[in-house]
Amino acid sequence: MSTRIGILTSGGDCPGLNAVIRGVAKASYELMKDVEIIGIIDGYRGLIQGEYKLMKKSDFSGILTLGGTILGTSRQPFKQMRVIGEDNVDKVKAMKDNYKKMGLDCLLILGGNGTHKTAALLAEEGLNVIGLPKTIDNDLYGSDVTFGFHSALDIATEALDRLHTTAASHGRVMVVELMGNKTGWLTLNAGIAGGADVILLPEIPFDMDKVAAAVQKRANSGKAFSIIAVAEGAMEKSEPTKRKERLAARSAAGFHNISEKIAAAIIQKTGCETRVVIPGHLQRGGAPSAYDRLLSTQFGAYAAHLIQEKKFGVTVAKVGNTITQNKLSDIAGKAKLVSPDDQMVQVAKSMGISFGD
Amino acid sequence: MSTRIGILTSGGDCPGLNAVIRGVAKASYELMKDVEIIGIIDGYRGLIQGEYKLMKKSDFSGILTLGGTILGTSRQPFKQMRVIGEDNVDKVKAMKDNYKKMGLDCLLILGGNGTHKTAALLAEEGLNVIGLPKTIDNDLYGSDVTFGFHSALDIATEALDRLHTTAASHGRVMVVELMGNKTGWLTLNAGIAGGADVILLPEIPFDMDKVAAAVQKRANSGKAFSIIAVAEGAMEKSEPTKRKERLAARSAAGFHNISEKIAAAIIQKTGCETRVVIPGHLQRGGAPSAYDRLLSTQFGAYAAHLIQEKKFGVTVAKVGNTITQNKLSDIAGKAKLVSPDDQMVQVAKSMGISFGD
Amino acid sequence: MSTRIGILTSGGDCPGLNAVIRGVAKASYELMKDVEIIGIIDGYRGLIQGEYKLMKKSDFSGILTLGGTILGTSRQPFKQMRVIGEDNVDKVKAMKDNYKKMGLDCLLILGGNGTHKTAALLAEEGLNVIGLPKTIDNDLYGSDVTFGFHSALDIATEALDRLHTTAASHGRVMVVELMGNKTGWLTLNAGIAGGADVILLPEIPFDMDKVAAAVQKRANSGKAFSIIAVAEGAMEKSEPTKRKERLAARSAAGFHNISEKIAAAIIQKTGCETRVVIPGHLQRGGAPSAYDRLLSTQFGAYAAHLIQEKKFGVTVAKVGNTITQNKLSDIAGKAKLVSPDDQMVQVAKSMGISFGD
Amino acid sequence: MSTRIGILTSGGDCPGLNAVIRGVAKASYELMKDVEIIGIIDGYRGLIQGEYKLMKKSDFSGILTLGGTILGTSRQPFKQMRVIGEDNVDKVKAMKDNYKKMGLDCLLILGGNGTHKTAALLAEEGLNVIGLPKTIDNDLYGSDVTFGFHSALDIATEALDRLHTTAASHGRVMVVELMGNKTGWLTLNAGIAGGADVILLPEIPFDMDKVAAAVQKRANSGKAFSIIAVAEGAMEKSEPTKRKERLAARSAAGFHNISEKIAAAIIQKTGCETRVVIPGHLQRGGAPSAYDRLLSTQFGAYAAHLIQEKKFGVTVAKVGNTITQNKLSDIAGKAKLVSPDDQMVQVAKSMGISFGD
Repeated sequence: MSTRIGILTSGGDCPGLNAVIRGVAKASYELMKDVEIIGIIDGYRGLIQGEYKLMKKSDFSGILTLGGTILGTSRQPFKQMRVIGEDNVDKVKAMKDNYKKMGLDCLLILGGNGTHKTAALLAEEGLNVIGLPKTIDNDLYGSDVTFGFHSALDIATEALDRLHTTAASHGRVMVVELMGNKTGWLTLNAGIAGGADVILLPEIPFDMDKVAAAVQKRANSGKAFSIIAVAEGAMEKSEPTKRKERLAARSAAGFHNISEKIAAAIIQKTGCETRVVIPGHLQRGGAPSAYDRLLSTQFGAYAAHLIQEKKFGVTVAKVGNTITQNKLSDIAGKAKLVSPDDQMVQVAKSMGISFGD
Repeated sequence: MSTRIGILTSGGDCPGLNAVIRGVAKASYELMKDVEIIGIIDGYRGLIQGEYKLMKKSDFSGILTLGGTILGTSRQPFKQMRVIGEDNVDKVKAMKDNYKKMGLDCLLILGGNGTHKTAALLAEEGLNVIGLPKTIDNDLYGSDVTFGFHSALDIATEALDRLHTTAASHGRVMVVELMGNKTGWLTLNAGIAGGADVILLPEIPFDMDKVAAAVQKRANSGKAFSIIAVAEGAMEKSEPTKRKERLAARSAAGFHNISEKIAAAIIQKTGCETRVVIPGHLQRGGAPSAYDRLLSTQFGAYAAHLIQEKKFGVTVAKVGNTITQNKLSDIAGKAKLVSPDDQMVQVAKSMGISFGD
Repeated sequence: MSTRIGILTSGGDCPGLNAVIRGVAKASYELMKDVEIIGIIDGYRGLIQGEYKLMKKSDFSGILTLGGTILGTSRQPFKQMRVIGEDNVDKVKAMKDNYKKMGLDCLLILGGNGTHKTAALLAEEGLNVIGLPKTIDNDLYGSDVTFGFHSALDIATEALDRLHTTAASHGRVMVVELMGNKTGWLTLNAGIAGGADVILLPEIPFDMDKVAAAVQKRANSGKAFSIIAVAEGAMEKSEPTKRKERLAARSAAGFHNISEKIAAAIIQKTGCETRVVIPGHLQRGGAPSAYDRLLSTQFGAYAAHLIQEKKFGVTVAKVGNTITQNKLSDIAGKAKLVSPDDQMVQVAKSMGISFGD
Repeated sequence: MSTRIGILTSGGDCPGLNAVIRGVAKASYELMKDVEIIGIIDGYRGLIQGEYKLMKKSDFSGILTLGGTILGTSRQPFKQMRVIGEDNVDKVKAMKDNYKKMGLDCLLILGGNGTHKTAALLAEEGLNVIGLPKTIDNDLYGSDVTFGFHSALDIATEALDRLHTTAASHGRVMVVELMGNKTGWLTLNAGIAGGADVILLPEIPFDMDKVAAAVQKRANSGKAFSIIAVAEGAMEKSEPTKRKERLAARSAAGFHNISEKIAAAIIQKTGCETRVVIPGHLQRGGAPSAYDRLLSTQFGAYAAHLIQEKKFGVTVAKVGNTITQNKLSDIAGKAKLVSPDDQMVQVAKSMGISFGD
């Protein structure tokens, strides 16, 4: 009897999606007698609207190094996950109906936190779901690392490298805003790897005076330039805790990003020439790094084993050196955040890096 | 008798500055008996304030690949070049005095258009000046190419490559704003090399409807994504010609950059999901490319020959395949702009790229 | 009436082949009413054996950045071009027959020197041929630059960069053998860009004692490491001029490559620890550089114009800044070699680089 | 009272050495009141000959990204570690004497397996030694990962990527020989990440017929090209187990490397066009990757804590996600090898990769 596997990729694109898809496919064809793979188009949108295609073996050739996703992706289907209102009920029904119409034995869902919430919901509703932890933010609960993170880290680190030469030549402060609205893993790691002098994270609210003092201290010691790596979701201690209020207050002061606010404060407090750089979507594009290709291939192969063993309602994870699984119901709705006591934060501090705290 | 050579780097930093400095130094030591090289700190600022150091031979080792400038740089010394007022007279006098105090036989000045204006002025005032054409904008009059341009082109092209994967996965329009206030060489070349669908330049004012139409045409033919490469100085036909007025009008409409204005219009006119990316200073940082190392070394070696032949009041240039020289008085105050008839514009159009004109 | 264009890629693969193919196709579709493009498989082999396919417009999408060639390639069809013997006559006849069978209006041939010899022959035989100058060796007569050269230069330069750190850490001599059997353009340019201390080219036979002396001189001045960039076709003054004899003599002495022979001599003459690295095919793989994408696109667009104007029997070239054409009969069988008086050789010497001459 | 820390780097150079040195230095200055750091020149050679220098704080600035080692390195001091003969006794005595003369409180030794044997010996002899696990081979016993490994992995993977395009264009088999005499971690991981079709490791002797069969199977299914990643220390089942005998037998057959032997066999058994590439020292040069900068910084900071706590006779290790320590006496003389049951080997097999076993 054949096994019919559906795959969809959801949320922001990220390097490694195609490597995971290839890993699942190759290992499934290898492990199981008779496998059919259905590619669902543009994430949950395709599941809701019944848009999909039967994949051929050759579709999975040559995609290991390909950035983005060959299946397309879209943002989350539900605006408010907690309240499953009229509209959402319809969407869930449509997804279940299409799952049946496609004759799926299981559904593999590649995505981040939001995607996993929906995946957990579909599992509760009786679908055979397996999640795969994708995000450059690295904040998926229960996995030490997610695919995409190391590729983004390489890009962000290279950006910091480049800015070092221009900062040093001009004696400038460069404020580099990296991706990460709720979590600072990318900024923390890229900051250390890229030799930043100040690192500012959503999880560790900062004091602008301390940031300025760190810059001033370097200037006083003859180092005319500083590099500040700031996560887009970083905030001052004095700013409102609620995101909406915080953004409104910033906007009222004429700032669109936290980096602009920091730059203005540095100029005012230290007199140092300061510039802002926001690499933005550059951080999620292009081919996956060697690390991410390995991790993605491992994740994909592991998922194929789960399918073979009919083990559903779980998401693949890496814990220590082991590829393993977590129940979707255990991790959905949670996030893995940077603790101020994290080993990496302590390492950074021992390098003399300021967190402005 | 010894030859005493002063070197300064001025204006925005750019890959290849150190490679030129090394080229001048190595070739001068090789060609002339007795050479002393004076490094002037932070561009014209160091010349005005008399800040400099005697360089050792070893200072020029290992800097071929180094980004930025080992001498430091600063922006132009004069706000208004045309009116040499009280303050400027003092600055010119200080530069001439320090030139004498340092005992220089000549002064090598590495910089772009603004820098060359001042260089021409100093030559008029009797100093033995040689210019070297530095700019990622490639707009120095009289030279087919400037050092720094090809390194920036590589970075900008890689940025476009990265954005292709994310644009394709999400079916998005990506508006990428590249450096170039007055000229679009970088955007034109990176746009073609990076496979952009629309290229917008300061020299070719565009019609927003035509830009939207190009995006729509692709969407209609099943290509859900488009890449728009826009120079920061690009403008609509309908916008004010004067820069100040143009920026004021944009700002009043809530736009900080031309890219944001374009994105808003695309969304409104086509309904396509659209994102803006501004790589900014990433375009001028890091090690010079192989091309720029070769060009910089050629330029530096040529400058050493000019010194040997006591040929001053000129700037080094590349014309066709030949390294040559132009009189500073012939090129100062001029700029090399993209003509709508330029061969590369025509090539781009034959690839189906729209300029919105 | 429709125009039917055949394209083939011949000889060693090289970055930019697909970019040229795309350039020809996009510009042809844009310029001419009704165009059909025939892709001939694996170079002349496909022409001889009549293996080809009708290309779709979509075949040319997304290949600008793709390394290698989507059409496949093979080595030269004739072992001895000068003597058109029985076998060759049959091959030429087969090519002409298939040209007719395919109903071609013209045939675009992308390749290097050997390929162009055959292209010239086919033009003589009455086929409407246009050549396109491909080679990482940059030795095609009549064009200042060929596509593929700058991509290979970037890779070779990066290799030299990497070897600097290991050479410096160990105080070693590194002998790096780069591609180039008959010509040293790649080694000359990569050597300068990568900061080599010695550059050895096929066109400038060297004296092993002088090479060793250059290494020794650096060692004496406290620089324990040296980088020697040698083209695979470089030779000692004392070696036989005829290639076969030279290789036989080397082989008899136990050396497979010139780099091994140099390394053995350096060790014997200077006592310095010495290592050989041969990047080999790494130099021709991967995506084309921004420079090569631009050049390839220009070449392709120009070829489309030639087709439109029914201008055949020529090959596309770049001379100075101009894309132009040469008659195949004028350039076939010739090669562009490095002259010892070449500007770049002189620049290298002024940097203190030894050519062992 | 001040703490005087000696540092030396030994064995083959590798990315991350300077990042570790910087990590130790910055964290030591931060943690302890009064620290002096002694840089010992060229590894154990400098310790034996008493060549060293007092480092300044500024010596550790800007070296995070620098390849190689600022201290220089040399190969192992002892040819036969097991027999401590006359000469070795003298060397050990010299090392102990110089340790005292320098007034060291401890000695940090960065190196691989051989280096750690000597480090364990010096610890036994009463010196306060801390090891740091450096090797691109990743075979240090007791640590899941060593610094340098991931940088080498990135380079080797990029090499495989490049060779894919040339292999595919020509329909060729490419045999890529990667570093790793005793262990295949690098080849295993790069092979998977680079999409190799066959992976051959020292730990899994192979059958040449099975390798040829894997190539033939691909050819039969229409894939004219294959990529074979082989570690330099890989061997056939039929070859002598003893290294000397094996190399002698190969040499007698005219092969200098295992890759050449494989290529000859593939050509003979399948008739496929086959090429060999040996990236060699390119794999250990250049700047460390982001991963290695983080790991090196963590290792360095951890070593500083060990110094502060006067915890000696150990080497730093990463186990799971934890930075920890192993007794030198527990790990010296052992190696971490790839098991045929290793998770990564299984993942590779599930991708259809052949190990020729």
